[in-house]
Amino acid sequence: MQIGILYGISVGPGDRELITLKGLRILKESKVVAFPAGIGGKPGFAQQIVEQWLGSHQIQLPLSFPYVSDPVILAQAWLTAAEQVWQYLHLGQDVAFVCEGDVSFYSTFTYLSQMLQKRHPESVVQTVPGVCSPMAAASNLGIPLAVRDQRLAILPALYHVKELEIVLDWADVVVLMKVSSVYEQVWQLLDQRQLLKHTCVVERATLPEQVIYRDLRDRPSLKLPYFSLLIVKVTQS
Amino acid sequence: MQIGILYGISVGPGDRELITLKGLRILKESKVVAFPAGIGGKPGFAQQIVEQWLGSHQIQLPLSFPYVSDPVILAQAWLTAAEQVWQYLHLGQDVAFVCEGDVSFYSTFTYLSQMLQKRHPESVVQTVPGVCSPMAAASNLGIPLAVRDQRLAILPALYHVKELEIVLDWADVVVLMKVSSVYEQVWQLLDQRQLLKHTCVVERATLPEQVIYRDLRDRPSLKLPYFSLLIVKVTQS
Repeated sequence: MQIGILYGISVGPGDRELITLKGLRILKESKVVAFPAGIGGKPGFAQQIVEQWLGSHQIQLPLSFPYVSDPVILAQAWLTAAEQVWQYLHLGQDVAFVCEGDVSFYSTFTYLSQMLQKRHPESVVQTVPGVCSPMAAASNLGIPLAVRDQRLAILPALYHVKELEIVLDWADVVVLMKVSSVYEQVWQLLDQRQLLKHTCVVERATLPEQVIYRDLRDRPSLKLPYFSLLIVKVTQS
Repeated sequence: MQIGILYGISVGPGDRELITLKGLRILKESKVVAFPAGIGGKPGFAQQIVEQWLGSHQIQLPLSFPYVSDPVILAQAWLTAAEQVWQYLHLGQDVAFVCEGDVSFYSTFTYLSQMLQKRHPESVVQTVPGVCSPMAAASNLGIPLAVRDQRLAILPALYHVKELEIVLDWADVVVLMKVSSVYEQVWQLLDQRQLLKHTCVVERATLPEQVIYRDLRDRPSLKLPYFSLLIVKVTQS
């Protein structure tokens, strides 16, 4: 018997219509649909995005990925998840793992996939690309993310403001993902460089709850949710 | 009468199934479908991606964007295109402009849209985000583009190899779009830094003609088409 395929399906940043035709087709064709489990019994984010497409014949497989940074706990969670997925794959059933945004872009899928291939080298993994949040945020802001010869830098998280200084010296456009925890420090630096006028923040891009802030000069502090990103246009286009 | 909306619709990097549900819905609902005209009477690239979805009731509007760098000639072409689009918008008809990749990511749509809004400030523009080629290339390579705290840099074109040196000192992952014209110089530099093993090239990502090169140590020269990109994993993940 042939083993099943693990598909990593990008479902986009939140708007349910931003899944691709290919992602939706494979999602519907898969016997098992896996996703990161939600917190406190609530459905997870990727699960919410695709729930309208799931059929009663499909098995839903929530996988537990704890929100911690301890590498031992994380590795154990990925191992458990990989074995849960393998239980279906080795019976010849395809598993579609759905993840918000794009599957190649800072995605939990990478860890699941790497652990599966380490434990079961015979496994087959395929991915479907999708809409990542910087593209979606730019679209909803009504601005290009980058044009012509502009250099684009994307920072997933910021540990030292010094890093941002280096990037601002080099790039024409800078995207900071997950900016909430460092927003005030970032604001100070952008203020010093007189870039606040050319900076935007997008909370929960493409969701009905989306909030947009343009021109941050009057916003030295903002209470932002986890899914918030900041775009600095260092060079004007 | 209400004026029509100009939609910028991202149709993805080539695979026809990589349009989003939203993009396809708006495409089908629009009276007029515009796209960059092809060369020598051939259909344009974005036009080819969507042609299977176009109905006989829809007006197809090829717009001419010459492949030159002269800003005067380009501005004239954008002006002409903006006026062609406006002819339909001011009659209340929506126009869907389709563009390959993502509409916010180094797209011709930006120029058309900016010119339209300059000439007709009352015009209304909306965009639908999509799959950009770096995400699609990573997906087809079977690698994550970026994970964890990796810093990602995207260079649309390279005018001086010095620029690449700066970015290699700073980023964990570097994407060079349109790498064909500078490939040999880039290869030399990556060779000096012993990064060729961790570098891939993808030609025409997601198309049936897609070609992938992994580990470039034995490839000091490559004859690449225009739609080729290179991904350097400076830091191993």
